[in-house]
Amino acid sequence: MERPRHQGMAKNTSMRWRLPLTCLLWEVAMIVLFGVFVRFGPEADAHWEEEKREMNLTSDIENDFYFRYPSFQDVHVMIFVGFGFLMTFLKRYGFGAVGFNFLLAAFGIQWALLMQGWFHSFKGGKILIGVENLINADFCVGSVCIAFGAILGKTSPIQLLILTLFQVTLFAVNEYILLNLLHVKDAGGSMTIHTFGAYFGLTVTRILYRPNLEQSKDKQGSVYHSDLFAMIGTLYLWMYWPSFNSAISEHGDAQHRAAINTYCSLAACVLTTVAFSSMLQKKGKLDMVHIQNATLAGGVAVGTSAEMMLTPYGSLIVGFICGIVSTVGYVYLTPFLESRLHIQDTCGIHNLHAMPGLIGGIVGAITAAAATEDVYGKEGFIKAFDFTGTYQTRTPSVQGGFQAAGIVVSLLMAFAGGAVVGAILKLPIWGDAAAENCFEDDIYWEVPEDEESDVYHMHNPDKPASP
Amino acid sequence: MERPRHQGMAKNTSMRWRLPLTCLLWEVAMIVLFGVFVRFGPEADAHWEEEKREMNLTSDIENDFYFRYPSFQDVHVMIFVGFGFLMTFLKRYGFGAVGFNFLLAAFGIQWALLMQGWFHSFKGGKILIGVENLINADFCVGSVCIAFGAILGKTSPIQLLILTLFQVTLFAVNEYILLNLLHVKDAGGSMTIHTFGAYFGLTVTRILYRPNLEQSKDKQGSVYHSDLFAMIGTLYLWMYWPSFNSAISEHGDAQHRAAINTYCSLAACVLTTVAFSSMLQKKGKLDMVHIQNATLAGGVAVGTSAEMMLTPYGSLIVGFICGIVSTVGYVYLTPFLESRLHIQDTCGIHNLHAMPGLIGGIVGAITAAAATEDVYGKEGFIKAFDFTGTYQTRTPSVQGGFQAAGIVVSLLMAFAGGAVVGAILKLPIWGDAAAENCFEDDIYWEVPEDEESDVYHMHNPDKPASP
Amino acid sequence: MERPRHQGMAKNTSMRWRLPLTCLLWEVAMIVLFGVFVRFGPEADAHWEEEKREMNLTSDIENDFYFRYPSFQDVHVMIFVGFGFLMTFLKRYGFGAVGFNFLLAAFGIQWALLMQGWFHSFKGGKILIGVENLINADFCVGSVCIAFGAILGKTSPIQLLILTLFQVTLFAVNEYILLNLLHVKDAGGSMTIHTFGAYFGLTVTRILYRPNLEQSKDKQGSVYHSDLFAMIGTLYLWMYWPSFNSAISEHGDAQHRAAINTYCSLAACVLTTVAFSSMLQKKGKLDMVHIQNATLAGGVAVGTSAEMMLTPYGSLIVGFICGIVSTVGYVYLTPFLESRLHIQDTCGIHNLHAMPGLIGGIVGAITAAAATEDVYGKEGFIKAFDFTGTYQTRTPSVQGGFQAAGIVVSLLMAFAGGAVVGAILKLPIWGDAAAENCFEDDIYWEVPEDEESDVYHMHNPDKPASP
Repeated sequence: MERPRHQGMAKNTSMRWRLPLTCLLWEVAMIVLFGVFVRFGPEADAHWEEEKREMNLTSDIENDFYFRYPSFQDVHVMIFVGFGFLMTFLKRYGFGAVGFNFLLAAFGIQWALLMQGWFHSFKGGKILIGVENLINADFCVGSVCIAFGAILGKTSPIQLLILTLFQVTLFAVNEYILLNLLHVKDAGGSMTIHTFGAYFGLTVTRILYRPNLEQSKDKQGSVYHSDLFAMIGTLYLWMYWPSFNSAISEHGDAQHRAAINTYCSLAACVLTTVAFSSMLQKKGKLDMVHIQNATLAGGVAVGTSAEMMLTPYGSLIVGFICGIVSTVGYVYLTPFLESRLHIQDTCGIHNLHAMPGLIGGIVGAITAAAATEDVYGKEGFIKAFDFTGTYQTRTPSVQGGFQAAGIVVSLLMAFAGGAVVGAILKLPIWGDAAAENCFEDDIYWEVPEDEESDVYHMHNPDKPASP
Repeated sequence: MERPRHQGMAKNTSMRWRLPLTCLLWEVAMIVLFGVFVRFGPEADAHWEEEKREMNLTSDIENDFYFRYPSFQDVHVMIFVGFGFLMTFLKRYGFGAVGFNFLLAAFGIQWALLMQGWFHSFKGGKILIGVENLINADFCVGSVCIAFGAILGKTSPIQLLILTLFQVTLFAVNEYILLNLLHVKDAGGSMTIHTFGAYFGLTVTRILYRPNLEQSKDKQGSVYHSDLFAMIGTLYLWMYWPSFNSAISEHGDAQHRAAINTYCSLAACVLTTVAFSSMLQKKGKLDMVHIQNATLAGGVAVGTSAEMMLTPYGSLIVGFICGIVSTVGYVYLTPFLESRLHIQDTCGIHNLHAMPGLIGGIVGAITAAAATEDVYGKEGFIKAFDFTGTYQTRTPSVQGGFQAAGIVVSLLMAFAGGAVVGAILKLPIWGDAAAENCFEDDIYWEVPEDEESDVYHMHNPDKPASP
Repeated sequence: MERPRHQGMAKNTSMRWRLPLTCLLWEVAMIVLFGVFVRFGPEADAHWEEEKREMNLTSDIENDFYFRYPSFQDVHVMIFVGFGFLMTFLKRYGFGAVGFNFLLAAFGIQWALLMQGWFHSFKGGKILIGVENLINADFCVGSVCIAFGAILGKTSPIQLLILTLFQVTLFAVNEYILLNLLHVKDAGGSMTIHTFGAYFGLTVTRILYRPNLEQSKDKQGSVYHSDLFAMIGTLYLWMYWPSFNSAISEHGDAQHRAAINTYCSLAACVLTTVAFSSMLQKKGKLDMVHIQNATLAGGVAVGTSAEMMLTPYGSLIVGFICGIVSTVGYVYLTPFLESRLHIQDTCGIHNLHAMPGLIGGIVGAITAAAATEDVYGKEGFIKAFDFTGTYQTRTPSVQGGFQAAGIVVSLLMAFAGGAVVGAILKLPIWGDAAAENCFEDDIYWEVPEDEESDVYHMHNPDKPASP
């Protein structure tokens, strides 16, 4: 039943008017909305000198820029190079991986500045932005990059832009519910970014199920060099993850602690990933898919608890477990999800983001519930969980309960949102490729004649060598 | 007429004595000049403790190092990896792109430290350097990397070193005229770096015009993997451009603001680049050349105004326009410049740096002219434009006029300097390659036997397999 | 005599149980040891507010995190991307280069946190860690990455883990002797990291000498794209080396100065590397091996003296010399070491780390011996060399003597340690590959069918196309 639709679509993948119009109209909308709403926050405004006096700051170094800008740049690299190159592993979809990720992220950060701004930085009718807003916008887009991983190679750039528009919107709503209504802690986004993003993407790909995808199976693999390109993505995600989890934590000890916990968790995760990758292959050989992905699960899984007193050995334990869970997921769960549940998960985000994200939410709930004034110090305890104002009387165990509720809300938002967005993307007007043309850059990109072809032509004197 | 010269030259591309002698003698000259002139600035000197007391600083964190070092490193990455890899798109010129860029930048930063030092950091007979000097040296070299883009693949490494020597010198003079004599603002260098660098390079390539360049046309394209390598360059330039434009701005709000404006401009630029790349291709397919280059035009075009109160939506508008201008330039202007004006612009720097640089200068002039005490605050206004001392009475509109004059001066310096340097490089003694050997690493590099050849040999039993 | 052993081993390279067990057991050991010993230092602990009051700090920005985190991230990139990709130059060992480097470094940083912690951060029965410990752990692992360069392609992952375990241990002991007992300065680790790491690795590879290695000679070279991947590693090492040498220097001027000195040394080194690479090749062509490696020697060689008043021109001189020494080493010494001394040094670490490391130690000794109160200022002099407490009366020339002693100790530790570890690695139970299978990912990795093969199959209708 699906087949004919896709065959029909094959004639219709041209983006010539649909994509330009979408990009231009949406960008105009961004300009109008920014014009109406977005202004510099006090630390980026030229009135800063006055602000400084009012806030009794003695030095420019107290500007939030110097606390967060290095972390912002690391996060920025993760979103554009990290996610972008991680997905270049496919042999003929490198342009789409890195190029579409670039497109959706560039649009997404603008829309996220608005959505998150209305919820969190809205003062006197204006959204006042600073470096923290930039980081949060990148975070929000990170969840879209994750969802992109599930549908990689199977959607048109317009579908990706639509996905971004809706997912950023829902992300901001979900984040608001968690951070403001439930008063949940989630600095590195195990729940808001990873759990939400991954289950959202998995729901979308389930709805976009393509029964004939085996027609492009030859293009679903990697080649030697594409695996090396993907390792660039992996390593930048791995190296900068401590910045990711600490980027928006409180100044001082919290940022410091979040970086250390993440560093430890990621280190342990590499060892168990290697162990299980080797163990689960007949000849004990390592599988690049695992090294590229499962090694990162440790970063996902301390996303909620990194700024808490998880302790270095606690982080090692979390990383230890997640390397195993994620690798085993790649070997057994991904094929199962595809064959039984019809969830075609190109990059295996279920193993890298969904399960570790859930684990991260749970670890966060437990760590919060286990917090004591003894461990945190009287002041540190209040500061770490922001037990002030309305939340003055909240106890650790209650906080743990709310943290757990945050997981559930994120899941529900992901499933519901993913279902609606998946249905929209299923409409036969967005120019997605036929099953046999999936995972193939040639559909949406001008692809240069390449080495192989050169050689090929060399041996085919009948065929003209020029394109 | 040109042809015979180049054919004759083909025998003479050997660098064996010319290149080593140039490198060694020039480096010895650097050592001597550094020995005579260059010393540590007060914040890098071991007398810093005394300095701190004098300046009434209470903490080491007030050392300029902590304000600027992270931005410096980002700029450093842009110069060496950003520009270097951006130019690896050619199928057989990756070594030259990344290697010659490395060479000229490594020499250029030393000469720039001296030239800029004499103009701006000269005290008591010594050039006193600190992290800001390192950033400025990288900036100066950035303009050489831009010019390199125009002549990529067509010049010998000696020619590139000579180009660097002269261009850095002229850059420093032009910068001095703009910043000190005209008292112009140009933190991200729309005028000093991009306009100057691009028109300088375009003038040089015009003078070095090669009528028979179509002989190496087969090597002027990209292959699949080389386009991915180039995307590494693109993304690092794109991600770190906020650091570029804010690196030498005033501490505090100005740095913060410059980063935000650049972030916004670049995001908008991606959308319009994609729109026009798709729109201008018959089948609506995206062209990697546009994605690799035009997406960066937004960063160039807010180079002057980023630290001003351009506002986020103002930045979006600038980015919006520049994505269009740059992409349209690649499609229509580049072929026109080559066929009619005999300007062979390998990387299309006219579209990425020249036009956006001009726009950036103009946007800066307008933004400065439109500045009011209301928008900047009384103190902020004076601080932003440094309206102190001699410039105490300068009004915004006058400042706007001087900014515009800065554009004109940069253009004149570029044309005049480029003409002279082009003429020098045209001398038939520098070992440049013949037209049929352009864009080919094999001329100046030991190139390994590669995959293709392996395969080729596999099918050619007559030909010996070893090199 | 070796031959049969290796041929026998060919059947035994399966890692299926050996590698997983090693990884899992060692990681469990890490968790237990971290649980017993490792806690957050005061600046990462939730009690920081109280600490701040006690230390009389007025702002969170005084947290060491903000002094060192950006440098830490740069160092982190050097270890994982820098060293990892630098070694991808081999045509069929990219997975091993980047993947095994990832594995050994991820294990090594954990073990280094413990070993270095016991020596330097042990208080009240606990190791208290902060960002400086993370940097030091990365540094320690850097010395293992260096040693890995000598044996690249010839060892199994288990051998690499064993090497890491022992080398980290010895590194920590050697570092303790130098820094604490000899009271030597070595901020960038010319002695502790480079001299020790390189001679350790060279001793190991000498003991693991493979007489029949020419059987895999066809795989010891690079291909075009692998050389470009390696340049990613080179450039990140080169760009971030100023962060490496300044990362753990004293706050303020020392960090600032170390970055400037390293920047200068590296710039000069590029010029002399290019000069000698061209000069030593018959046709004057540049050799990628030199550009990828010798350009970095300048960073190694100012590792000890960068934080001293070496001065910018002093740095240029050091870089000038090291570019020459290193390049000449690649051309003449490496073949000599292999043929005469049976030292098979895959990456040429003797030229990049051993000789420049020695030079760095000597330069450090001379610079220390030449220090005067005039140059450093009274306070600066004491601060720079930490001439306090027991060392109050130490003179510069005595310090120079101790610095020189540090070189000797590092060498002795490297030779003795390398001999023992080499003997352990020689045991025929670790699953290393036969000589004809060295430098080949296929032994330990599932390697995807690649482009070449596709083409190959295209022309071989007899052979089935699927793997």
